[in-house]
Parts: sequence; C-alpha cells; structure tokens
Amino acid sequence: MDREELLKRVQEQMPEHRFTHTQGVASTAVRLANQYGANEDDAELAGILHDYCKYWNKEKMQEIIEQTNSIPKDLLLFDKELWHAPVAACVAEKELGIYNPDVLSAIRFHTSGRTGMSLLEKIVWLSDYIEPGRIFPGVEEVRLLAEQNLDQALIKAFGNTISFLAKQGKKIYPLTLEAYNDLVQQVKLKGEEVSDGF
Amino acid sequence: MDREELLKRVQEQMPEHRFTHTQGVASTAVRLANQYGANEDDAELAGILHDYCKYWNKEKMQEIIEQTNSIPKDLLLFDKELWHAPVAACVAEKELGIYNPDVLSAIRFHTSGRTGMSLLEKIVWLSDYIEPGRIFPGVEEVRLLAEQNLDQALIKAFGNTISFLAKQGKKIYPLTLEAYNDLVQQVKLKGEEVSDGF
Repeated sequence: MDREELLKRVQEQMPEHRFTHTQGVASTAVRLANQYGANEDDAELAGILHDYCKYWNKEKMQEIIEQTNSIPKDLLLFDKELWHAPVAACVAEKELGIYNPDVLSAIRFHTSGRTGMSLLEKIVWLSDYIEPGRIFPGVEEVRLLAEQNLDQALIKAFGNTISFLAKQGKKIYPLTLEAYNDLVQQVKLKGEEVSDGF
Repeated sequence: MDREELLKRVQEQMPEHRFTHTQGVASTAVRLANQYGANEDDAELAGILHDYCKYWNKEKMQEIIEQTNSIPKDLLLFDKELWHAPVAACVAEKELGIYNPDVLSAIRFHTSGRTGMSLLEKIVWLSDYIEPGRIFPGVEEVRLLAEQNLDQALIKAFGNTISFLAKQGKKIYPLTLEAYNDLVQQVKLKGEEVSDGF
C-alpha cells in the first residue's frame, strides 16, 4: 500500500479534526526524527497510523485485546483511551501489512509509554503531545524543551500527564509511571538535573 | 516497654518539631480509628513509632534494608524519604519488642502505601498527611474529606502527592501509584464517584 492509499485509509477511520491531528503528528515526528537522528520514514509512518483505531468502538477494541497474546489484559481495567494504541499496532500488522517492528512498537506505546522506550517510540509519543494543533496548559513549555533535549521534554510531558490524572482522581496506567520513572533515572545517570522548565 | 518509656525513646530519635508531629499523628490516628472503627491503641502505637528512624543516617538505613529480607531492595533506587518507614517497622520489632503485625504494617507502609491497604494502614498514612501541624496547599481539603469518607480522603491525598512529585520531575515509587490506583478502583467498585473535593 503506497503512502497516498494509506492516508486515505487512515482518513476513513476518523473525523476530520483527528485526521488533521494525525498529519500534525506525522510532520512533527519527521522533524524530531531529523533533529534526533531517527529514521524519518519510520517516524512518518508511525505518525500516520498511530490513531488508526481511535474511533473504533469499544467492543471491537476489547475483542482484539482479548484475542491478541502480546497485549496485556490488565489494559482492560484502565481507561479505554489507552486501548487504541496497541490495537492499532495489531491492526497495522494484520490488515495494513506493516511489519517494521520499530514502527509497530512506536504505534503500540504512543499513549502509555514504557520503560526503555526506543528513540522512535519517544519521538512519536512526544509528537502526539506537541503537534501544532495541541493547545493545553504546559504544551508550549514542552515544545521549547523538545527543541533542546528529547528526554527532558518527555519527562515534563509525562509528568504533566501523570499530574493531570492524579489531580482528577483517575487511574494511572503503571506502564506510564514506569516510563516516567525510567526517563528521570536515565537523565540522572547522565548527570543532568531534571529541568524545571522555563 | 510502657507508653511513657516508648515516647521517651521516640523523642530521643528526632528533633523537637518532629516529635510534635509524631504526637499529632498519634492523636489524629486515634481520632480516625474511633471514627472508622479501628483499634485505637494500635493506631496510637503506630502513630508514635512511624517516624522512629526518620533522622537515622542514610548508611544505617541502607544497611538495615540490605539485611532485611522482607524489605524490597528496589527501594534503594528511590528517594531516601521512603526508606525510614520499612526500617522503622523492622526496628520496632527487633529493638522495641512490637510484634503486632497490624501495627508493624501500618508503620511500614506509612509513606509508600500499597495495594490493598488495611484500615489501620490507611488511618496512619492519612494521619501523617493531615495531623494538625501540617500546612501545605490542599491539606485542608483532605482534612474535610477525612471527616466524611476515608478512601476519598486518601485518593485526594495520594493524588496530591503523586501530582507534586510528577510536577517536580521526581521519581514516584510504584507502590504509591498502586495504592492510588487501587483506592480509585475500590471506590468505583462501590459505585461512588471519585470526589473532586470542595
């Protein structure tokens, strides 16, 4: 399937505003890939596909999670906003013929994050947070950090996400906490201070 | 060892302001135990002992953690503010002759929390957060919630703690996240909404 055909398929899965977001994530991912030395084609592909299943109904996603060995079942105990990411990785492989494990993994962890994120996973996760259409408190600070230091930007963005959920009394997926703790640990091991932002 | 002798031993381990805090935690724990139907003597004893090792030096605490099978070693990878709690439980048993498992467990988890907290663990954790000497943003809201619903107060307090750490770019101990998620889940299973506070 060529790029145009893939984009058309993606567009059919979602409302217009989400397709605009998807294009923003893809272009941001390409820019960050260029800046931080990841494969730009992989970044674009993962960006294009990351929300492929975002508007699929809950029952369909649940069925795929239950039938896919590689998706941990505890996901079903957490907010369904987390479900579409591993489901999209599964669908990208089975229905769209995407076999590049880096791309699939970046799609799969684009919402939760995880310990030991790859460069491409980091780029796609962060692109989803800072693409130009995103407007919410704290996003500009993360955009500025992203220009300077990928891990610092991720720590700030994961920290904001965890803080937002904790303040609202919503459950936090353990993988997300692990991703955050791991990034803080990695930055400390490099001898850097965690940025307080600007 | 009687109550007065124990208090004297506790007082010797810490500066005056921390001993005042200790007494505040003990009296708050007794009040909450009375309100929520826990054993008041156990609550007072756990309150008195919870910070027994708070001012012990890092090396001594590390040695105890390394030599005590029941303390998970990953604790050493997290902030040393977390260390004194399980160390105090160990010391209370070995040096002070406290064998009541409910009391020891409430001391042990008074900083981290954990999944499936006992009533006494909840009471001591919350007393440490809301005792009268505590003054910080959000504490009054938790005090008011504690008068009405123990779990809602804990969710708010754990949420504040997690949010505070995440905003500061500090690591969050997984047990603390598990405690928070578990409380949110328990409240939902009871059909309650998680309180937004006042």
